[in-house]
Amino acid sequence: MLSAPATPDEGGSARDSIATEQDHFRSALSRTIDDFLAEQRGLLAVISEESLPLISSIATLTNGGKRIRALLCYWGWRAAGGSADASAPVVAGTALEFFQAAALIHDDIIDRSDTRRGRPSVHREFSARHAEAGWHLDADRFGVSAAILAGDLCLAFSEELFTASCSGAPGASARTIFNRMRTEVMAGQYLDLLEEAVGPDQTPAVAEDRALNILRFKSAKYSTERPLMLGGALAGADATLLGGYSAFALPLGEAFQLRDDVLGVFGDPRVTGKPAGDDLREGKRTFLVARALSVSDTGTRSAINTMLGDPTLDDDCIATLRELVTGSGALAHTEELIAQKSTEAFEALAGLGIDPASRLALHLLAEAAVTRTA
Amino acid sequence: MLSAPATPDEGGSARDSIATEQDHFRSALSRTIDDFLAEQRGLLAVISEESLPLISSIATLTNGGKRIRALLCYWGWRAAGGSADASAPVVAGTALEFFQAAALIHDDIIDRSDTRRGRPSVHREFSARHAEAGWHLDADRFGVSAAILAGDLCLAFSEELFTASCSGAPGASARTIFNRMRTEVMAGQYLDLLEEAVGPDQTPAVAEDRALNILRFKSAKYSTERPLMLGGALAGADATLLGGYSAFALPLGEAFQLRDDVLGVFGDPRVTGKPAGDDLREGKRTFLVARALSVSDTGTRSAINTMLGDPTLDDDCIATLRELVTGSGALAHTEELIAQKSTEAFEALAGLGIDPASRLALHLLAEAAVTRTA
Repeated sequence: MLSAPATPDEGGSARDSIATEQDHFRSALSRTIDDFLAEQRGLLAVISEESLPLISSIATLTNGGKRIRALLCYWGWRAAGGSADASAPVVAGTALEFFQAAALIHDDIIDRSDTRRGRPSVHREFSARHAEAGWHLDADRFGVSAAILAGDLCLAFSEELFTASCSGAPGASARTIFNRMRTEVMAGQYLDLLEEAVGPDQTPAVAEDRALNILRFKSAKYSTERPLMLGGALAGADATLLGGYSAFALPLGEAFQLRDDVLGVFGDPRVTGKPAGDDLREGKRTFLVARALSVSDTGTRSAINTMLGDPTLDDDCIATLRELVTGSGALAHTEELIAQKSTEAFEALAGLGIDPASRLALHLLAEAAVTRTA
Repeated sequence: MLSAPATPDEGGSARDSIATEQDHFRSALSRTIDDFLAEQRGLLAVISEESLPLISSIATLTNGGKRIRALLCYWGWRAAGGSADASAPVVAGTALEFFQAAALIHDDIIDRSDTRRGRPSVHREFSARHAEAGWHLDADRFGVSAAILAGDLCLAFSEELFTASCSGAPGASARTIFNRMRTEVMAGQYLDLLEEAVGPDQTPAVAEDRALNILRFKSAKYSTERPLMLGGALAGADATLLGGYSAFALPLGEAFQLRDDVLGVFGDPRVTGKPAGDDLREGKRTFLVARALSVSDTGTRSAINTMLGDPTLDDDCIATLRELVTGSGALAHTEELIAQKSTEAFEALAGLGIDPASRLALHLLAEAAVTRTA
């Protein structure tokens, strides 16, 4: 599907030059993040030095991560004719990184996740600060409240950066994409939450469709489709090219999230940085789980429903649940769906009228997204 | 201080024409809110009809309230030479209303407030929805999680509207004010939260200063100073006029918040729509409380510290706490400070080089803000 390089050497050199270009972009992105946070630290210090932990909590999250959204934004920009050294995709990429950090901070509260990338989640970090200092009232409540505010601040920072990236004429189209992205994520997160509450009462087949709708809006659009389109829009891409971006990046994002769902149940904690089977304890009604319920007999379905969402599940229960999911064929079916969505994405990418370097870069990013282990 | 109208009749007719102008503005504001929410409802319905309660929860909050921020924005615009029928202050005012709604949604989670303006707060509304439907897992947790997302969505909406209001050249100055305002509120809210945790360990006199700093950033700047400056900046006000706005509106906002603190302890629940003594059960370390602690003897101080922040306080305990606060002279001192800040504000207003109608309108708004009972 991907037009293969003529010789391995040429392919190698194309990959090298993409890697170099991405390194430049990543460095610029990190510098922009650092400069922005330094500026905000200055503003907050004027209010009170004691408010600075809000910035530290955001800095921890924005310093890490795979930068996949920012990189998609960058290649969306490049493939639409934007120049390699422009600042717009760097600043917009930074906005996407801050948006993701904000979503993660609030998501970890909602999911009661104690860790994020192998470190304490933000609300746990603030609870620990409270407990260590021996402050008054409830440490957990302090942690959650502080993390709500840290997430709000991070969301506002994301917006400040985004606005700075799109002052020119193509800004209006980019702005619409950014606005839609935020609304989609928040509505998708709500539906995800709702599914934990109403999931057990759904007809199993309906639950599969609902799970696919949730992953589309909660994750796929904002992880891949919208970042790529945003970069394109900033470079003045027309509706046809933006439509092509969507045809590639939406199934890619769906495959990406389905991979995430598989890792949430079967991932290796040493690689994912999250406890084994975390999604099962949380009661996440992912497509994988919905499928397992849909194809299992009544007894198995009832066993899964009973264990799912029980925060006290021990490793044996997790192992049992994993066996039930695998035994039902749901894992194999989900892997098939990942393969099918990936093929759809790679075919759409091959059909895009863009330069070979951008195509190769997007191909490599897409490959990494769907085959990842963390 | 306010240049008095020449005759009562002239004053009356000036007030009438201000009232008429404000009615027009309020109507335009309500229409803009309704139109915006209708548009967002359409976008969310495409994602899923089930996500629409997010919009209803926002609509309930944006339909009510005193519109003081929007009105200050409007008069900031008018006093800087903006025309009465322009859309920019309407859209910016709408953005301020959405920002406030977002802050209230998250604040009520943080403060564990069950009611807002006599109705269930958003997290309680979502818990009730869960309980009534007999859904699975924990109703309270569902309520808090859904309200975190509703607040995030409302914050994003505020931004969308703000961006729409400032596309022209004065937009950059207005944008900076809007950005600062958000950061100040979030940092101020964090400091407020921190004060509940570290307050009892502060030297009483230091605690008074800390309480004043918190009310400045958490409330005064965003309730009055920033909205007024925002309207002015949108109309192209220069730095001198914006500085004058600040000299008027910052002490006004401080008086406004001090009045709020008094109402939080002594307010009539039938008028405020909040349970009597709500701030005491929450353990809010307001200036009023800090002052009471600072001027009380050790025994009284210890009694106040013991009761403060106990969510189970009954009406008798609230009455006792009220007596301790009054008996310490802290209430009288706070009322004096309100009077002093009000005088400072009215004097600054009198010195502003603006047209008489705008001055009178701002005078009336300021009066309402510092003498309110709810």
